[in-house]
Amino acid sequence: MNKLAVVALGGNALLRAGQEGTIEEQQENVYNTCKYLLDLITPEHNFIMVHGNGPQVGNILLQNHAGSKVHGIPEMPLDVCGAYSQGFIGYLIEQQLRNILPTKDLEKGVVNLITQVLVDKNDTAFKKPTKPIGPYYTKEEAEKLSVETNSLFQEDPDGIGWRKIVPSPLPIQIGNSKVIEKLARDGHIVVAAGGGGIPVYYDENKQLRGIDAVIDKDHTSALLASQINADEFYIFTDLKRIIIEDGSADGKVLEVIPIAEAKKYLDEGRFSAGGMAPKVKGAITFIENGGSECIFIHFPDRSDEPIYQTRIVR
Amino acid sequence: MNKLAVVALGGNALLRAGQEGTIEEQQENVYNTCKYLLDLITPEHNFIMVHGNGPQVGNILLQNHAGSKVHGIPEMPLDVCGAYSQGFIGYLIEQQLRNILPTKDLEKGVVNLITQVLVDKNDTAFKKPTKPIGPYYTKEEAEKLSVETNSLFQEDPDGIGWRKIVPSPLPIQIGNSKVIEKLARDGHIVVAAGGGGIPVYYDENKQLRGIDAVIDKDHTSALLASQINADEFYIFTDLKRIIIEDGSADGKVLEVIPIAEAKKYLDEGRFSAGGMAPKVKGAITFIENGGSECIFIHFPDRSDEPIYQTRIVR
Repeated sequence: MNKLAVVALGGNALLRAGQEGTIEEQQENVYNTCKYLLDLITPEHNFIMVHGNGPQVGNILLQNHAGSKVHGIPEMPLDVCGAYSQGFIGYLIEQQLRNILPTKDLEKGVVNLITQVLVDKNDTAFKKPTKPIGPYYTKEEAEKLSVETNSLFQEDPDGIGWRKIVPSPLPIQIGNSKVIEKLARDGHIVVAAGGGGIPVYYDENKQLRGIDAVIDKDHTSALLASQINADEFYIFTDLKRIIIEDGSADGKVLEVIPIAEAKKYLDEGRFSAGGMAPKVKGAITFIENGGSECIFIHFPDRSDEPIYQTRIVR
Repeated sequence: MNKLAVVALGGNALLRAGQEGTIEEQQENVYNTCKYLLDLITPEHNFIMVHGNGPQVGNILLQNHAGSKVHGIPEMPLDVCGAYSQGFIGYLIEQQLRNILPTKDLEKGVVNLITQVLVDKNDTAFKKPTKPIGPYYTKEEAEKLSVETNSLFQEDPDGIGWRKIVPSPLPIQIGNSKVIEKLARDGHIVVAAGGGGIPVYYDENKQLRGIDAVIDKDHTSALLASQINADEFYIFTDLKRIIIEDGSADGKVLEVIPIAEAKKYLDEGRFSAGGMAPKVKGAITFIENGGSECIFIHFPDRSDEPIYQTRIVR
């Protein structure tokens, strides 16, 4: 039987820091990322892609805001902006996968699902926004936008600039997870739960409603991978965040980390708290729930830099 | 075996002329439309919904334009705006269907596919834009926006105002039509090919690319219904356009039209050229290809007006 893999792709792999965000740039990024992905995946793999949407949903929010200011179009809430971004990024990924597949002799369909993900409206995340989205700003720009758009901004830990922050509740249930699993096991590449999924909750009348938040796509993909008993879990990320903090200037790239060792490093605080630690935590949970390995792909910002892998294994 | 139905929903049923377009308005419209739809559909029906996106994609285009002007965010092309709208409207429909289904004792899943639709890049439509999208403007506003956004505007035949017009090529092939059919026959309500589908073509290097256009959702849904051998084809539309031009002030609502009669009326030019004629043409093609009937639902603008049905039958 084919192996089932869940692949988490950062929104930053699709629109990089410093890029303007034109459609041509994003198309090229998606093409390169998907090409690399299809080099990794053998014909004996079935797989599901969960993409991030940080930079894109931030742009969509600003477009919304500007559309209201200039043309009087009512602003859409953050859940709807997330739905916009699923349509957009999912479309780009499906299109480029369909362009690359014939060159790889992989006969696979590509199916793209708009996905709602259940959250708890009492999640403490709603009291403390933490998830950075959208473009980077100077401190002055951020302060101005904060007042204009009634939202919170925070300095990026990497010092690149200031970004808008929104609540990021934990995912509880992935909508249509059984359909996603079935389509993938039937041999389709399934793009689903983009941007971590559209956050929804049940109100007091048991009606499903959207809620102002962005779910972390690493949490969503880890939950999905566990729920559908995936064999492998891939996380594409940028180089810096995967490196073990070992005191050297650049950190150290580990190729294979047995799960016991990963737990030890985690306890010792050797993964960066904002970046790698939660991803490694997700990897450990996934493997403890029966997954065989979690593979981190260190995708560099520039295409002439090498690509590293780190495998967390049983 | 269950009957398979394709249901085409006008974008205007989801955002009505005169409405501001707030999320609350659109949610309520979607709720009411889906509720009515689930009254029509028996437990023995499987069905696929194809929604329009005229008003929504027009708003998205303006948001894009304003985002570029105010925040310097690169504008997305029309195919990407179509993808935004699929994510948005598909999400609203799935959410409201999931809210209504438990009240109807219908045990069905709801699956929402982002769908590309192949067009011919040499379609004559690209030389002559005809498809109205977005909000209505006064003549003066339209002239100003036409210069500002480098686009064409045209007066609406109903005299409500001026709207932007874009190319509307014919659909050739619905992406993932076999997956759509399979999911529907397995009992899921499938939302697909929203806004008529994201228009794509193959370039000289056999690469799939988006193209600046909006496909008519009636054409797309008629093609889909024929390709997957649907039994019934429902078209939700506003009241005025379905009425036979019989010379009376309000026209006449016919309840059942045998296909031979429909063809005769069509030849006599008794369906309005811009509105009903192409829809009736689609209905005739569908039935001639093996479908059993096409049901037009005259959905009025106001909820206190009656809802009429016209069936075109063998």
